[in-house]
Amino acid sequence: MSKKIRIGIAGYGNLGRGVESAVAQNGDMELVGVFTRRPPASVTLLDPAVPVHPWDDIGNFRAAVDVMILCGGSRTDLPEQGPALARNFTTVDSFDTHARIPEYFAAVDEAAQAGGNVALISVGWDPGLFSLNRLFGEAILPEGATYTFWGKGLSQGHSDAVRRVPGVKGGVQYTVPVPEAVQRVRDGEQPVLNTREKHKRECFVVLAEGADPEQVRQAIISMPDYFADYDTTVTFISDETLRQEHNAMPHGGFVIRSGTTGAGSKQIMEYALALDSNPEFTSSVLVAYARAAYRLKQAGERGARSVLDVAPGLLSPKSAAELRKELL
Amino acid sequence: MSKKIRIGIAGYGNLGRGVESAVAQNGDMELVGVFTRRPPASVTLLDPAVPVHPWDDIGNFRAAVDVMILCGGSRTDLPEQGPALARNFTTVDSFDTHARIPEYFAAVDEAAQAGGNVALISVGWDPGLFSLNRLFGEAILPEGATYTFWGKGLSQGHSDAVRRVPGVKGGVQYTVPVPEAVQRVRDGEQPVLNTREKHKRECFVVLAEGADPEQVRQAIISMPDYFADYDTTVTFISDETLRQEHNAMPHGGFVIRSGTTGAGSKQIMEYALALDSNPEFTSSVLVAYARAAYRLKQAGERGARSVLDVAPGLLSPKSAAELRKELL
Repeated sequence: MSKKIRIGIAGYGNLGRGVESAVAQNGDMELVGVFTRRPPASVTLLDPAVPVHPWDDIGNFRAAVDVMILCGGSRTDLPEQGPALARNFTTVDSFDTHARIPEYFAAVDEAAQAGGNVALISVGWDPGLFSLNRLFGEAILPEGATYTFWGKGLSQGHSDAVRRVPGVKGGVQYTVPVPEAVQRVRDGEQPVLNTREKHKRECFVVLAEGADPEQVRQAIISMPDYFADYDTTVTFISDETLRQEHNAMPHGGFVIRSGTTGAGSKQIMEYALALDSNPEFTSSVLVAYARAAYRLKQAGERGARSVLDVAPGLLSPKSAAELRKELL
Repeated sequence: MSKKIRIGIAGYGNLGRGVESAVAQNGDMELVGVFTRRPPASVTLLDPAVPVHPWDDIGNFRAAVDVMILCGGSRTDLPEQGPALARNFTTVDSFDTHARIPEYFAAVDEAAQAGGNVALISVGWDPGLFSLNRLFGEAILPEGATYTFWGKGLSQGHSDAVRRVPGVKGGVQYTVPVPEAVQRVRDGEQPVLNTREKHKRECFVVLAEGADPEQVRQAIISMPDYFADYDTTVTFISDETLRQEHNAMPHGGFVIRSGTTGAGSKQIMEYALALDSNPEFTSSVLVAYARAAYRLKQAGERGARSVLDVAPGLLSPKSAAELRKELL
């Protein structure tokens, strides 16, 4: 039996926990340790047999870890951790600040080249699998339009924005694609859709004691960038309802390419995800790409890559011949 | 401006005509010629300025063609043409006899290696894009089940079978996914579905003069392999209706991966195609992969490959940096 791919997890929040679960589903991998900036004794893993190490010791594990999966956030953690860890490890991360991907790629690439490692950045579903499908769409149907719809799903950023409103004790926000817009795209109409026509926003809010519902509602729906450009509903709920009915992190969405070939034949390519758990799915994508990163490094590649650069066969534990026989 | 990729088309039926259209949609490519076993003067292209050459001259065009797109059939043409042409050209083909892919790959690989070429086999949507999505599904969600549904679409093989029945003057057959089965899969039930539960078959038949409709219907629905295992409907129509309402070649289908992560979170990945023209779409996939084949050859690769081996970024005329900026 060949040696297992040894995985490390850098950061243990929702994503790190998801990676721990996902590694356990892959027989060719083993989790060798979790690295955390919290006191290690305060971190409880799903599998108590896996060691938790203090962040500052991570450099001692260069020889023990084949691929380090970075589970920090894109805003403050990854811009610093990505380049630092790519110098010492082959890495996979889910950096998702779309506008800053070019500069992040450059920083990680330099570090990975210097360290002789491979660093796969922006892995997940968007960026990630959705990016791949935008690419397939425009490469295969050059005459057409691409549409990305998100949801129905819990948006962390918009939920945070709701919770910052004075008078709000707690709450969540769901992004919901407008069904009529999705249908028009699926029908091949290639409509021009503005922000309001594509998505609506549904907020479920627990009021602080004494807060005025109408004032809170107005503050939310008029918030620039987050809500003002959307049709937004605000539903007031109890603490208990929030805890019981809004404690999951579902998400998903669609990438649809609507194109034309020949003398006007309509061709529709659609990619859709419906996820009970957004972080667990993102983690599963990270783990499959960790296998690819390991193989790229074994094959002598060096530097930063994205999902666009990875041959899909590298994601599977099966050989190329098995894949051709079973999946083609 | 950089040199255009010079494309040749080997065989000019529905697929070859689709490739001609698709090349015209891609500004970085030019069609340098069509090769045919028919008398060249009898072949009318969409663009009369493109030369048509006799098949036997094809060997003289090694220096003039960057990628030869093979548009013959999988049953008799490609098993012979694939290896023969891969010796002289970098090729792309749509070989789709699933069970024979391993031996076809081996024959084409040997020829391509000997000739110093790249040969991309089994390109299209199934095998092809559907294969990729089966791979992403099982690699990302190892605990789960994959479902492929075809249709609604015109099946060439089943239409041929219908037309061979005594008493049938003309006809077509549509493969139709059973909506209840698709819904159960989308709902994450992971049902075990037999052949009859997944697809039904709808035949539209023009009777030969004096033929007995009930006898024809029985002969069709009881035909082993093709119809006996399915719920099959036979609708009798006129010559005129056949010509007017059944002259297109629509197709499509779904690949759905239903998996579980963590403590039972259901995760659904779905890929769907809805195609007005099956051959034009397949041709568009072939042309995008011709760009990838060209680049693999330029990068020094040699031998047979499938879509599973190709980094998606190679399909696009854009640079890796542009793709990261625009699509990630």
